[in-house]
Amino acid sequence: MTEVTLDERRFRERFDEFNEIGATEAGGVDRPALSDENERARDLLVEWFRDADLDVRVDRIGNIFGRREGREPDADAVLFGSHVDSQYNGGRFDGVVGVLGALEVVEALEDAGVVTDRPLEIVSWSNEEGVRFQPDMLGSGVYAGEFDLEYALGVTDDEGKPFGEELERIGYDGDAPCEPDGVNCYLELHVEQGPSLEDAGVSVGVVEGVFGFSWMNVAFEGQANHAGPTPMHMRRDALVGTADVTKAVRELTATGGADLVGTVGSVDVWPNAINVIPERVAFTVDVRSYDDDVVDRAVDRVRDEVACAADREGLEFEFEEIMRLEASAFDADCIETVADAAAAAGCEYERLVSGAGHDASYLNEIAPTSMLFVPSVDGVSHRESEFTEWADVVTGVEVLLGAVREQAST
Amino acid sequence: MTEVTLDERRFRERFDEFNEIGATEAGGVDRPALSDENERARDLLVEWFRDADLDVRVDRIGNIFGRREGREPDADAVLFGSHVDSQYNGGRFDGVVGVLGALEVVEALEDAGVVTDRPLEIVSWSNEEGVRFQPDMLGSGVYAGEFDLEYALGVTDDEGKPFGEELERIGYDGDAPCEPDGVNCYLELHVEQGPSLEDAGVSVGVVEGVFGFSWMNVAFEGQANHAGPTPMHMRRDALVGTADVTKAVRELTATGGADLVGTVGSVDVWPNAINVIPERVAFTVDVRSYDDDVVDRAVDRVRDEVACAADREGLEFEFEEIMRLEASAFDADCIETVADAAAAAGCEYERLVSGAGHDASYLNEIAPTSMLFVPSVDGVSHRESEFTEWADVVTGVEVLLGAVREQAST
Repeated sequence: MTEVTLDERRFRERFDEFNEIGATEAGGVDRPALSDENERARDLLVEWFRDADLDVRVDRIGNIFGRREGREPDADAVLFGSHVDSQYNGGRFDGVVGVLGALEVVEALEDAGVVTDRPLEIVSWSNEEGVRFQPDMLGSGVYAGEFDLEYALGVTDDEGKPFGEELERIGYDGDAPCEPDGVNCYLELHVEQGPSLEDAGVSVGVVEGVFGFSWMNVAFEGQANHAGPTPMHMRRDALVGTADVTKAVRELTATGGADLVGTVGSVDVWPNAINVIPERVAFTVDVRSYDDDVVDRAVDRVRDEVACAADREGLEFEFEEIMRLEASAFDADCIETVADAAAAAGCEYERLVSGAGHDASYLNEIAPTSMLFVPSVDGVSHRESEFTEWADVVTGVEVLLGAVREQAST
Repeated sequence: MTEVTLDERRFRERFDEFNEIGATEAGGVDRPALSDENERARDLLVEWFRDADLDVRVDRIGNIFGRREGREPDADAVLFGSHVDSQYNGGRFDGVVGVLGALEVVEALEDAGVVTDRPLEIVSWSNEEGVRFQPDMLGSGVYAGEFDLEYALGVTDDEGKPFGEELERIGYDGDAPCEPDGVNCYLELHVEQGPSLEDAGVSVGVVEGVFGFSWMNVAFEGQANHAGPTPMHMRRDALVGTADVTKAVRELTATGGADLVGTVGSVDVWPNAINVIPERVAFTVDVRSYDDDVVDRAVDRVRDEVACAADREGLEFEFEEIMRLEASAFDADCIETVADAAAAAGCEYERLVSGAGHDASYLNEIAPTSMLFVPSVDGVSHRESEFTEWADVVTGVEVLLGAVREQAST
């Protein structure tokens, strides 16, 4: 097998240049989906795809593909990539490592004169993060048939701007169909966004699947009143109910299942004044596990806790599950391909399950899929201080290269 | 004693006309201190003071006085009034009843040709609510020597605008000294803002004093991280600490003292996203009692609970008491004057202590003071739905009239 060597310097220079777009003072990037910064990042990516002689295609939801033909033009393609949209004030590694790593894989093959049997397609998914437009993983969701295209184009941001109009504004309302066409498998390199690999002291994680999760919106309504003259027994305090549920979510994970995690992440209080009893609180609950039954039970428990807290405090409540994604178990062969590639690269690896959602979950529905992770220092992600040691990033791309070559040979 | 009769129709028409200023769709008013609406309310009040031949004086912090001379020009004046600034989207009765009621008292005396021995001074205090500029009760506080004038003029709103500049902008940076000069006593009619009078089925409350209170700012800092891949035992969730303290504040009142009330009213979460562990939460605590020792112990307990919650969850914390006001026991003679006036008006009354703070607390430091309350339906206040039966408002003004006449005779 021809030796293929990454051009680490080129890769590093591109990584740094790319992250100048939307760079924040604290060392992160601010490139939420369909922002001006996201547009510039997409433009640069397309420019580099063209420089690498890739055939560029943008589909109707704004997913960007760069294709390199193989020796067998009719063979299904190996699809691999990630995303380049960011959280608000997010990190430089989340998504970018997977997309620019994929580009480096293709360029390194080109440098070595290696043509694979199967075509290779790099992909950058549209709106993975879901911070400006919900739901997240919108581009891969439409691609995999999870969402209707029209629904996705119609979702709006907080200002009421539709996804479709913003996509058009930045010039990425492509005309390619948003659907799979000859996909052999999907591979994705990503940062772990958790502490497991660092704890284990390994450079690569072979991802066997992704947690299922539920997102819930909860609202309590009590009665606003002056904090002084209202006796405690006459209060209906929406924040007290919220505190009950927050505590319950913290504690339900102690009995709900070994891998269950639960988070109250967002809380909005009205009227939010120092001397007024909170009348209305809207908050979110996120629960995750690799066992869908555990998620089911956790959702039931959260619903019960909301009802109990409302009853205790005399509150009205609303409870809505706004999103549910089942756990994904990746394809056994694809998982072994990644593990073999890690072993061949001579690096230590650990098998793990992802607590974070990924486009790969949707891709897993339509093609054999697996992922590989590189460690996140201190497990930090979705923050400007997100960091992965550069040597680990390079190792990850080497393993990706090996896995892509293996999958691309017929 | 000459009979003096309120002109109920005039009073009602003025009340309604006044509350057209800053009226909200839901039936409240939005006239926070030094807003354009507050300016228009002040202008109308001054116009009515002048129509009633009162000598108008605006002091350097924007308190507005309307003076009617008595038979004894050297006698100390009976000072009475309240405030016309509102909460954001507040009620029509809070403050306005006391100021327009005071004007009706003076006009009714004028209609009946009654000149009191002592001068009468109506006052409308500047920035009682404290929603845009903190601290609250700023005008009466400077007047009573609690705050320096320069400090008060320098406090800023959320946009950084100084009180003094905004006062000048609306034309109420008066040149009268902001200090007491010949005050015999202070009386204030106000809505109760709590449920006690309605519960007791009486029209008037004779207020014997005001709760002391403490306001605290608390902040927790943990670590933001992705809600999926971060195991529960590795989290440092600032919202969990906040929930602990919210529950503790709800519960400490069960053991802290019979009249102790405690409220977490305002909570701000960062980054406030559904799938990110809260890194930083800033929140407020308000505790009140008529017993200053009970307030002391409650503040100590809140501080302890904050420290314990931080320790449990691995958080950094900040704790600051930003305001403390001791309980006020009003003047025994003034209290009896109000009680006698209520009895003379033939109405049932109840003696009570105010859980809400009032300008009268500061006035009590420099002159004999008391208050009277009229019932708040459902105890509701600081909301657009705040309501007092009109018959109760009129009864309150009648009792105020009686008390003013009694205090004004030498």
